[in-house]
Amino acid sequence: MFQAQQKEVIPVPDNVKRALKEILGEHRVLDDEMDRLLYSYDATRIKMLPNVVVIPETEEEVQKIVKICYENGIPVTPRGAGSGYTGGALPVKGGVLVSFEKMDKILKIDEENSVARVQPGVITFNLQKEVEKRGLFYPPDPASYKFCTLGGNVAENAGGPRCVKYGVTREYVMELNTVIHTGEVIHTGRPTLKDVAGYDITRLLIGSEGTLGLFTEITLKLIPKPKSAKTVKAIFSDIAAVGKTVKDIFKAGISPSALEFMDKLAINAVEDFGHFGLPRDAEVLLLIEVDGHPKAVDEEIIEVARICELNGAKVEIAKTPQDAAKLWEARRALSPAVAKLGRTKINEDIVFPRSYLPEALP
Amino acid sequence: MFQAQQKEVIPVPDNVKRALKEILGEHRVLDDEMDRLLYSYDATRIKMLPNVVVIPETEEEVQKIVKICYENGIPVTPRGAGSGYTGGALPVKGGVLVSFEKMDKILKIDEENSVARVQPGVITFNLQKEVEKRGLFYPPDPASYKFCTLGGNVAENAGGPRCVKYGVTREYVMELNTVIHTGEVIHTGRPTLKDVAGYDITRLLIGSEGTLGLFTEITLKLIPKPKSAKTVKAIFSDIAAVGKTVKDIFKAGISPSALEFMDKLAINAVEDFGHFGLPRDAEVLLLIEVDGHPKAVDEEIIEVARICELNGAKVEIAKTPQDAAKLWEARRALSPAVAKLGRTKINEDIVFPRSYLPEALP
Repeated sequence: MFQAQQKEVIPVPDNVKRALKEILGEHRVLDDEMDRLLYSYDATRIKMLPNVVVIPETEEEVQKIVKICYENGIPVTPRGAGSGYTGGALPVKGGVLVSFEKMDKILKIDEENSVARVQPGVITFNLQKEVEKRGLFYPPDPASYKFCTLGGNVAENAGGPRCVKYGVTREYVMELNTVIHTGEVIHTGRPTLKDVAGYDITRLLIGSEGTLGLFTEITLKLIPKPKSAKTVKAIFSDIAAVGKTVKDIFKAGISPSALEFMDKLAINAVEDFGHFGLPRDAEVLLLIEVDGHPKAVDEEIIEVARICELNGAKVEIAKTPQDAAKLWEARRALSPAVAKLGRTKINEDIVFPRSYLPEALP
Repeated sequence: MFQAQQKEVIPVPDNVKRALKEILGEHRVLDDEMDRLLYSYDATRIKMLPNVVVIPETEEEVQKIVKICYENGIPVTPRGAGSGYTGGALPVKGGVLVSFEKMDKILKIDEENSVARVQPGVITFNLQKEVEKRGLFYPPDPASYKFCTLGGNVAENAGGPRCVKYGVTREYVMELNTVIHTGEVIHTGRPTLKDVAGYDITRLLIGSEGTLGLFTEITLKLIPKPKSAKTVKAIFSDIAAVGKTVKDIFKAGISPSALEFMDKLAINAVEDFGHFGLPRDAEVLLLIEVDGHPKAVDEEIIEVARICELNGAKVEIAKTPQDAAKLWEARRALSPAVAKLGRTKINEDIVFPRSYLPEALP
């Protein structure tokens, strides 16, 4: 049975609802219970019911929504795909939830300057597909990249396996249009590689989880698409050897483009969930991707495999890009797979200096 | 004749001077005119005279200095090497100037985690030399890297030629200790590659030019040192072809690690200044560096040279690392060389999307 977990709800009075409907039309202001339920969750499985869900299509509409709420003391919560694990999309005190599902246009891919301008509701994967067609690359790859939105990525400063080499969303945001609490829109940043004058308000907004404003337009930096990428799958019987291996890889001067590990429990959860062909009897599985110039990748992936072997691993280099993609899909399936094991899943996205890896591993 | 350019000076009363001398000892509180003159300039050539210069050796001393000034309404200005072009180190209203010349220790180079912890007065080049001995790399390379300080780099969010591939100082700061206006020290950031929870106060402090606080300890991210780097020198007779060339290089999927150009006036100013062997009759000189895996660099530098030639350039690949270093030294000499041409030099550090290059060039 559904149960909202709010301690306090700030209601939206009828006159405000009417005003919202005047701005957006009846069909983009949702306040019946079923609709509100559909916007009450995120990946935390906590449920917070909004009083009204609004679906703007333009920056101007977002401004008007926020202004009315500001004048009436009503909380505003922005929502991308609701795939976050921090509660950023949950309307903790009810009020108005702003869904960016209809602001999902890629406004421009500027190949000459390697820059993309997007609306916040664009799905991360959709941008990646489009830019990769043009030989460009947008690295941030949160586990939910196939359905999460770029606005949500910026609000959460999202990162995925590639952050080990390419950094998190923060490193790719050049400009933001943000509707702040009063309904005013502020523009911060510049579409240039060097932008160092003045306080860095753009980076204060990134990761602010909707508490400082709602993004209505985002300019992202793109980089040349790596011409090659290869993945090693290494199976270890000893968890301590993994820490040593990672250390040795970096020591060899190699920057892996992705580096993830799974223990036996995780491997089996993923196999139960999706049958990816992972070895169920392995203690630990380490996935390492190297990307870049083809000749560099060919040498470095062999070096990585050798380092794994020296540390006692059974090693296999994925033969085709499809084989490699399957391994990474398996890793991405980990979160939903583990969620299936029980009624509650606690996400600890722990972070530590990599030398602590042997101690941090259970 | 020396002339300070202050409109208003807030004096430092004797009791405050006495208190500062109690904290630091007589020899680290300078208030005679000659000493004050020596700390009154930066690279802007504007002169602003401090009332007192203090030279702390510890974070605790910095805290005490700032607290006293705060309680007495006296402005505090931090100073690294005074090599900035923004006036950040100038005591515009007099007061106390804090020179970090004695807080110049590299506290730790953590090879395992590729992290360095430094005091703010460490000279950028000194850190670079030390980490490169260990196979690591600290990319930011402002023109003044041989004498500017890391504290100043963080305060100015400094960048140099390498920012085209590696980004500016911002991208390498993991943690900061900052003494804020009250004298309290705040610690922000984490020494990990992923640090995305909470407001990004670290990046608000970076580039704040001393207006939000004084840095007393800095943790910097290091990356593996590229195993190879090569430089192309390309001479163009037509400035428009340079813009096209740069576009073509990026279009070929190559990320140069540095990319700088000089026009005839600049080339001749540099040659008058230092005799670097640049071609005085060239209209435009483009320097392009590619770094990374040796095999990738060997292929890419030839591809870059070919692209330059296709755009009408006379091209030469530097034969040795020493030859390449000389070319980059020439570029770095540009600023002092141009300063010699007249009594005043106006620095316009202009930034624009790279497709505007042909229009932006004179």
